[in-house]
Amino acid sequence: VSARGSEPSAALLEHLRANLGADHVLVDPDVTARYVRDWTGRFHGEALAVVRPADTGAVAEVVRACGAAGVAVVPQGGNTGLVAGSVPARGEVVLSTERLSGVEAVDVAAGQVTASAGATLAAVQRAARAAGWDVPVDLAARDSATIGGMVATNAGGTRVLRYGSMRHNVLGAETVLGDGTVVERLSGLVKDNTGYDLTGLLCGSEGTLGVVTRARLRLVPWWPDAVAVWAAATGWDDAVALASRLRRTVDGLDGLEAVDRAGLTLVGEHGIGVPLRPVPAVGVLAVWRGRGDPPAALAETVGDRPHAVAVGEAEVARFWAPRERVTETIARVGVPHKLDVTVPLGAVGAFAADVHRVAAAHGLDAGRALVFGHLGDGNLHVNLLGLDPDDDRLDDAVLRSVAGHRGSISAEHGIGTAKARWLHLSRSPGELTAAAAIRAALDPAGIMNPRVLRPPTGPGSRAPA
Amino acid sequence: VSARGSEPSAALLEHLRANLGADHVLVDPDVTARYVRDWTGRFHGEALAVVRPADTGAVAEVVRACGAAGVAVVPQGGNTGLVAGSVPARGEVVLSTERLSGVEAVDVAAGQVTASAGATLAAVQRAARAAGWDVPVDLAARDSATIGGMVATNAGGTRVLRYGSMRHNVLGAETVLGDGTVVERLSGLVKDNTGYDLTGLLCGSEGTLGVVTRARLRLVPWWPDAVAVWAAATGWDDAVALASRLRRTVDGLDGLEAVDRAGLTLVGEHGIGVPLRPVPAVGVLAVWRGRGDPPAALAETVGDRPHAVAVGEAEVARFWAPRERVTETIARVGVPHKLDVTVPLGAVGAFAADVHRVAAAHGLDAGRALVFGHLGDGNLHVNLLGLDPDDDRLDDAVLRSVAGHRGSISAEHGIGTAKARWLHLSRSPGELTAAAAIRAALDPAGIMNPRVLRPPTGPGSRAPA
Repeated sequence: VSARGSEPSAALLEHLRANLGADHVLVDPDVTARYVRDWTGRFHGEALAVVRPADTGAVAEVVRACGAAGVAVVPQGGNTGLVAGSVPARGEVVLSTERLSGVEAVDVAAGQVTASAGATLAAVQRAARAAGWDVPVDLAARDSATIGGMVATNAGGTRVLRYGSMRHNVLGAETVLGDGTVVERLSGLVKDNTGYDLTGLLCGSEGTLGVVTRARLRLVPWWPDAVAVWAAATGWDDAVALASRLRRTVDGLDGLEAVDRAGLTLVGEHGIGVPLRPVPAVGVLAVWRGRGDPPAALAETVGDRPHAVAVGEAEVARFWAPRERVTETIARVGVPHKLDVTVPLGAVGAFAADVHRVAAAHGLDAGRALVFGHLGDGNLHVNLLGLDPDDDRLDDAVLRSVAGHRGSISAEHGIGTAKARWLHLSRSPGELTAAAAIRAALDPAGIMNPRVLRPPTGPGSRAPA
Repeated sequence: VSARGSEPSAALLEHLRANLGADHVLVDPDVTARYVRDWTGRFHGEALAVVRPADTGAVAEVVRACGAAGVAVVPQGGNTGLVAGSVPARGEVVLSTERLSGVEAVDVAAGQVTASAGATLAAVQRAARAAGWDVPVDLAARDSATIGGMVATNAGGTRVLRYGSMRHNVLGAETVLGDGTVVERLSGLVKDNTGYDLTGLLCGSEGTLGVVTRARLRLVPWWPDAVAVWAAATGWDDAVALASRLRRTVDGLDGLEAVDRAGLTLVGEHGIGVPLRPVPAVGVLAVWRGRGDPPAALAETVGDRPHAVAVGEAEVARFWAPRERVTETIARVGVPHKLDVTVPLGAVGAFAADVHRVAAAHGLDAGRALVFGHLGDGNLHVNLLGLDPDDDRLDDAVLRSVAGHRGSISAEHGIGTAKARWLHLSRSPGELTAAAAIRAALDPAGIMNPRVLRPPTGPGSRAPA
């Protein structure tokens, strides 16, 4: 990845050591090991160095120095991504935000907080809740996922239905752009129509436009009361219809999830089944959070379908288990191929049928093609068990079905390097050209995470025909 | 604005007539008059022609032909803007979206609708409500403001507090970019992490990156029940504290507005006063919408301050009148200078004090410097009465106070051409450089609304020192 020889690299390392201190320019393979490999262990590489700047000025200096040396920068937050977007291939500088971990005092009047890139979601949640507020985005990796990474990947999670993804909740950011310029927008303005939304553009840019160093987050009320319902649906179309009615009638819906019979059966076998007998074709989990009693429309809309109700945080947490722990339960029985897609809500039923048809054609019965996810958003996780790890023909067939339904091949995980070969299924040539032009505008030297979000082209690419 | 002489202009007109039909290439000054002047009458110019394409292909053809001829394009929706962003200066082609007025069938399951650029907000609201859903953005100009213009200006309004601005509610758009490329993203994917958010970038771009031809909108529940409260605050700091508590405790808060004593007194003199005696320093209007009774926290939080309560749509509409009609009431007594700003919520009190201090220094008593607005967002409208129309020294002083509080010189109205000279107060040189690079990337010929969102530079500019 270095455009020059080893002498400039040595000079770059020397420069970085002089600026950051030798302790924060890591080159020992034993020490860098955890930074050059993703948490699944599937993706790994080698870095010229791992650097750990302690403030925004130091981040800018790293970016400028790497730009001058023609060395690529791979920003890395909690390294919890699933698409190999924050690990190096060979010769890059990995820029870890782990020392940028501060959470500023919560602005109680505004309901906002500024957090540094390396702060974990859990740390920000603790600060917010202590002030009577809460973070609108929540996800299972909360103890290791960092705010900077969550901005860069436009993290979603379980509350998108109610509050939107990170992009909808970041009121501004401080960012080091690809040329080393620092732009800062942290005063927390809810309405600010003074030109292009650079902050929103950074959300989901996966480190290709710059390094987010701080973010100003919108907070939402911390709700003291919670109720959850597991309800039976006769299939995906019925589940979508129930979800639509719940969304239209129940204010305070805080989660709307679904797991198919294969997933419910599997978690049931591991002692965390849903309280529904018989196991339905699709189980729907609806969660309400607020103050006081839930709206009557929740019970009315569920009606006389088979269902079970949990009241209070502890019981509601138990109701979440079959949904939250389906992923780890799958990992206990095999190594799945994992796809994270969105299809339009009206196409969920047809897509799920497609999955089972193409899975059967590849020899997988329904019990080994599990579908579950964030029903309220049309975001489905497809897990395929029993396939050769390197054989992605079925993945390819499923993603083509997604494209056929005008869906997205990546709902929340992003593209990284792992999904780049399928990017053209979700983005038209015109969109890819526009994105490339924006990228070149903000990172003219092409040093920011250059392998990420880049569709393969030219000889040797693995792009499907 | 034409880069060539009159012959190419004649050829361009001929080409446009051949493509659109002569009836939709307007050049008669009597006919074009309403397109070349903004609705306030303050801003006007001359166009080479006003064109009215009937579909996306025709829009693309207009953009390509104008690009080839070096003639600028000024996109125009409902022409309800306040910053001269959709009227020509001299020689541009005004591209009216008025024939792109379709509203597609509401997707009831998804809670989404696709509308063409020229559809009015009111038309989309009617379609949504007939299907049990509602549009999350509402504003007073609903009968003439169009969806395309609302996307291009990232329109805000009264429900931003609950649902966000247009940017948060546009799930995708179809757009003709500056080079004539059509990009289309209309399948309504709530989660879609496949690269940069082009749609979000278009929101607030004021026609400088392309022409939005259709938009896919997120809908929200249509709520059958409404309650409103007018409560007294002893000043702006007290109003902000009340607003913060309401936001933290009341789910379903659908509006949170404020009007100062000068405004309340004025509307009271015109028969639409608030039901509070004596008139408070600041009146706070809190509106809840939902199904059933409002949460107990609404009454508890208002507590024993002087207040009045309205129940049901008709009474709530009467409670809105003093707030919604303050603008027209001001217009009945004079020609105001109007500023639309955001300051961080913690700075609202200090900023309001600044306004009165600098107004007094310019000879305006408190009754002629009115402050009101969307309290929940920190978005204040400052109206200054009794000034010479062309003397903007007080405007300048107020906007400098906004910048001193790290606020935004334009909360919802945008920059257009009218506010461009103050843009540097809200955007740093680094941000302006980045924005210019993005603009050049998507509109390489520089033909899209070139006078808009462009800070004045060089000799003869009116940029304050």
